[in-house]
Amino acid sequence: MRTLQVDLGERSYPIYIGGGLLNEAGDYFERHQLSKKSPVLIVTDDHVAPLYLKRVEESLGNSGFTTVSKVVKSGEKSKSLEVFEEVMTAAIESGLDRRSVVVALGGGVVGDLAGFVAASYMRGVAFVQMPTTILAHDSSVGGKVAVNHRLAKNMIGAFHQPEMVLYDVDTLQSLPEREVRAGLSEMIKHGLIWDAEFAEWCREHTADLLSLDPDALGYGLTKGCSIKAQVVSEDEKEMGLRAILNLGHTLGHALEAIGGYGEFLHGEAISIGMAAAARISVNRGRDRSLYDTTTSILRGFGLPTVMPGHLEEDQIIGAMMHDKKFKEQQLVFVLPTEIGKVEIVSDVKVEEVRRVISELKEEGHHV
Amino acid sequence: MRTLQVDLGERSYPIYIGGGLLNEAGDYFERHQLSKKSPVLIVTDDHVAPLYLKRVEESLGNSGFTTVSKVVKSGEKSKSLEVFEEVMTAAIESGLDRRSVVVALGGGVVGDLAGFVAASYMRGVAFVQMPTTILAHDSSVGGKVAVNHRLAKNMIGAFHQPEMVLYDVDTLQSLPEREVRAGLSEMIKHGLIWDAEFAEWCREHTADLLSLDPDALGYGLTKGCSIKAQVVSEDEKEMGLRAILNLGHTLGHALEAIGGYGEFLHGEAISIGMAAAARISVNRGRDRSLYDTTTSILRGFGLPTVMPGHLEEDQIIGAMMHDKKFKEQQLVFVLPTEIGKVEIVSDVKVEEVRRVISELKEEGHHV
Ligand SMILES: NC(=O)c1ccc[n+]([C@@H]2O[C@H](COP(=O)([O-])OP(=O)(O)OC[C@H]3O[C@@H](n4cnc5c(N)ncnc54)[C@H](O)[C@@H]3O)[C@@H](O)[C@H]2O)c1
Ligand SMILES: NC(=O)c1ccc[n+]([C@@H]2O[C@H](COP(=O)([O-])OP(=O)(O)OC[C@H]3O[C@@H](n4cnc5c(N)ncnc54)[C@H](O)[C@@H]3O)[C@@H](O)[C@H]2O)c1
Ligand SMILES: [Zn+2]
Ligand SMILES: [Zn+2]
Repeated sequence: MRTLQVDLGERSYPIYIGGGLLNEAGDYFERHQLSKKSPVLIVTDDHVAPLYLKRVEESLGNSGFTTVSKVVKSGEKSKSLEVFEEVMTAAIESGLDRRSVVVALGGGVVGDLAGFVAASYMRGVAFVQMPTTILAHDSSVGGKVAVNHRLAKNMIGAFHQPEMVLYDVDTLQSLPEREVRAGLSEMIKHGLIWDAEFAEWCREHTADLLSLDPDALGYGLTKGCSIKAQVVSEDEKEMGLRAILNLGHTLGHALEAIGGYGEFLHGEAISIGMAAAARISVNRGRDRSLYDTTTSILRGFGLPTVMPGHLEEDQIIGAMMHDKKFKEQQLVFVLPTEIGKVEIVSDVKVEEVRRVISELKEEGHHV
Repeated sequence: MRTLQVDLGERSYPIYIGGGLLNEAGDYFERHQLSKKSPVLIVTDDHVAPLYLKRVEESLGNSGFTTVSKVVKSGEKSKSLEVFEEVMTAAIESGLDRRSVVVALGGGVVGDLAGFVAASYMRGVAFVQMPTTILAHDSSVGGKVAVNHRLAKNMIGAFHQPEMVLYDVDTLQSLPEREVRAGLSEMIKHGLIWDAEFAEWCREHTADLLSLDPDALGYGLTKGCSIKAQVVSEDEKEMGLRAILNLGHTLGHALEAIGGYGEFLHGEAISIGMAAAARISVNRGRDRSLYDTTTSILRGFGLPTVMPGHLEEDQIIGAMMHDKKFKEQQLVFVLPTEIGKVEIVSDVKVEEVRRVISELKEEGHHV
């Protein structure tokens, strides 16, 4: 079992990473002195519930905690105000009070949804993340929680740090292959923005990671979480540095939005976005190898790096206009400068984006 | 013009109180260095908009700010997730970005609603309160923002402090009489919890306050705001002291809920709640004069202090069970110990509440 610390003053918290941790949930709750007198609400989805809910309920129950659970439909559509309201209803009907804990048992969808419930129920109660996807090594750390608006992703949310992250990596064994790849996309991102050596390590361990080798997975997730934790510690509310975590996301969110959050998984969308960002850098004068290396790592993991031909350029640009990364009408982009380093530029012109869209469509014809 | 300061470290902000301030909104925005490049969203209701929206738009426009506005229906029903979503839609469609400001122009309803929008739009943008009711001298200070759930009031919200409160007391002249009385109920509360002299001053100036005499109103609102600001400064997140502001609210919220937020105004409901709290204190051994003085001040203002006969005891108790003031299944009450002082007790038994409900129904037969 590995422990990382997210340093955020009085909002600091640990990330526990290891096998079998869900069976020990009760111990961790006791260690963190969470209230046994108030009901604990476990939010999960209908893929995860049959696999892991009972473990958590039993462990918490054995330690004397009272639990109630709310199971939402699997998938991005559950990150809506409508489902948010349903979870709130469950919370009220179950008598949650100000000392209650809301638990997110699942991937990033459940984490973001339950986190926003925890942030706003009675103006804020304690929150525990129990990630069960690879992608959630990213989403469960840093306190960003949100639901989507039909016009734009993650538009409605808060910063609400958890009490702890309890990451039972055994749960990853049941992940569908496509989710494995998509989750690894964010892991690779952590290498690309911060640590060239780690990016290289990811490339070397492509096969191990894809086959969910426990050692490789344990190391990669710990490294990924620790990069995320470092960045967040330095800039909790995204005033500056934290924005580097958005590599690939400006375009990626637009792709998710126009695909109705169904066509692309988050990790797939940002994979294309990272390819595009590298290409923009190259178009602006960086060495061509920056784009080649980036895309070859991603492709090694079976992740998409070209733009599907059926997506309309204008639609993509239109969707980007609603994105939070539009700061005072300027288009903000995270661009790599070399592998392991990025810069934030706020002067990317719409024409540059149009160009890269058509270049990545062109690439699609060659693969 | 009077200025008060709410001391909350880096979240400190001023409250400006005076006549004609809405016409100077642009100057105040400039003084606070709010962004002219990002659209400002003014949220108001359909009673307030025809009276005061143009003033604010013009003043901000003259100073070079771009404004958009969203007018919601007047009344507590607008404090819903549904209307919250509509305001979010307006914000997105108007292109609000992370440097935008959300303005609440109106009473507590608009303040709470717009404040929760400001707290959650893109995980939080700047917020300015422009209260136009007497009650809002209370609601606009302290950063509590929320919408209601159909099962319980203010259940979904956040702590989000404004950049400033711009309180143009000229707007109060157009308030309906019933709203004047209800607003004064919170002013009296500030005396009852904190400052016996101020409670006495309220009693002495009953007629001046009810007739909206500018001097009396200016003094009373400043005093009320400053008591609220002091309490909030010492306990922003309601870990302890701040709960004293809930005098009359445990029962009051229940009355509002079972009246469908239509029968009682907030100030009326808490007036009955304050009478009930004083009566519980007397039943627990305090001097009978505590109840008599409390109710005589409130009645002087035409505020209700008896329990309407048609409300079912069980219904009232049931509604209280959902209230946030239930801490670990214990019923928490703010009880006066003398005029100007209260204590927080967490052991009020359901029977004590039943008794006081029937006593206050009984009182109803005598008036
Ligand atoms: N808050 C943040 O900082 C942040 C960062 C990155 C991504 N996100 C968000 O995270 C979301 C994506 O997260 P995700 O990829 O984890 O998606 P997800 O939560 O939808 O999980 C992916 C799929 O795997 C299933 N699943 C989860 N765990 C499983 C398991 N152990 N075994 C079998 N199936 C399992 C789920 O039911 C779902 O169908 C997006 O909404 C994205 O916006 C948030
Ligand atoms: N956030 C807090 O700390 C806090 C504290 C106390 C109360 N509140 C909330 O405040 C709300 C009640 O506030 P309120 O009493 O101001 O109600 P309100 O906002 O509904 O205003 C009362 C009525 O007066 C109208 N109005 C407002 N200003 C006017 C003006 N200048 N001239 C003519 N009409 C005007 C409104 O349209 C409305 O019909 C409740 O929802 C309560 O929960 C919040
Ligand atoms: Zn992401
Ligand atoms: Zn109140």
